[in-house]
Amino acid sequence: MLKFFFSKGSSALAAHILLEESGAPYTTCEVSIAEGAHKTPAFLAVNPKGRLPALQTDEGIVTENPAILEFIATRYPKAELLPSTLFQQAQARALCAYLCATVHVAFAHGKRANRWTDDTSAMHIMRAKVPANLRDCATLLENHLVEGPWALGQQYSFCDPYLFLFEGWMAAYDQSLDAYPKLSHHAAAMRQRPATQAALGVHELD
Amino acid sequence: MLKFFFSKGSSALAAHILLEESGAPYTTCEVSIAEGAHKTPAFLAVNPKGRLPALQTDEGIVTENPAILEFIATRYPKAELLPSTLFQQAQARALCAYLCATVHVAFAHGKRANRWTDDTSAMHIMRAKVPANLRDCATLLENHLVEGPWALGQQYSFCDPYLFLFEGWMAAYDQSLDAYPKLSHHAAAMRQRPATQAALGVHELD
Repeated sequence: MLKFFFSKGSSALAAHILLEESGAPYTTCEVSIAEGAHKTPAFLAVNPKGRLPALQTDEGIVTENPAILEFIATRYPKAELLPSTLFQQAQARALCAYLCATVHVAFAHGKRANRWTDDTSAMHIMRAKVPANLRDCATLLENHLVEGPWALGQQYSFCDPYLFLFEGWMAAYDQSLDAYPKLSHHAAAMRQRPATQAALGVHELD
Repeated sequence: MLKFFFSKGSSALAAHILLEESGAPYTTCEVSIAEGAHKTPAFLAVNPKGRLPALQTDEGIVTENPAILEFIATRYPKAELLPSTLFQQAQARALCAYLCATVHVAFAHGKRANRWTDDTSAMHIMRAKVPANLRDCATLLENHLVEGPWALGQQYSFCDPYLFLFEGWMAAYDQSLDAYPKLSHHAAAMRQRPATQAALGVHELD
């Protein structure tokens, strides 16, 4: 049985949605970042990085969004969440890598700027650039990386819930998706899926 | 035939090493970051992100280190660069995700701090924290993420050349690996492999 460690409203939402899509049996364990539960010895024994999400499997812990998403997609093939060809899988992995290493990092310079400096004024300066960096990411995604209607084209895959996270980050910085029709339609289509609605409900998000 | 776009001394070194390990037939195209060739219309037509490495395949372009590394490992199975079980593959992907989204990003706050601010003084402040962040990454890798002698244990896999990049970043910031025996032995073992030596030679690195 899978056990999914998550914090409400965190990037764990993506894997939470995919678990719902997959049909996998799983239990959850809430680890509240707001309450500092991710830095307790109990959770550091699960994930020494102190980050969410984390997925406990029968073989051990899987961490990092791209690895967790692809693990779920591969372990539960009936849900057809894994692209069928090696090249399409490479495209899905490239999109996940861009989302985790460029897009998520751009967003993290808002609330988590202390990862890269101890200087309060520098943190404020970094935060100021976040909306412009998110718009640059949106432009690249819209024009080059997202096929539509789903990230890779006609078939929903494990990278779609991760893209949906980004669409929420745009809203968190009051950046409209109206100028990005593929992203806007993608966010709307995601919201129509019961799996998305179920995970949003657990995370107490609209 | 694969065509590999790289800049000497960049993070393209990891995939360059893996191409040598794989036995894949490939040609190369140098795109010098120092000369700004990654921002020319010719290269942006190949990779709109303007980033290296990029791998042109018969089906299209693959970007992002984790996706390129796993593509090479999967497409050329005789070299046994892909872990054999799903859980081990998930561990390899988790390590690649940590290397690209946390470790590479920590390093990039040195030379590439302009990605996150336009303020020169803030860039200097961010650079000052890079060595401490790299040491934190080294400690986590040593104590929790690297099995030894190779990243995942007894079998060399597609994430080893990526880990080797990090070992070079430590040296670039005058951070000794002596306090991290697994990483130190890993770097030494990597250097003994002909594939590593061949790629280092092309990149004009020691």
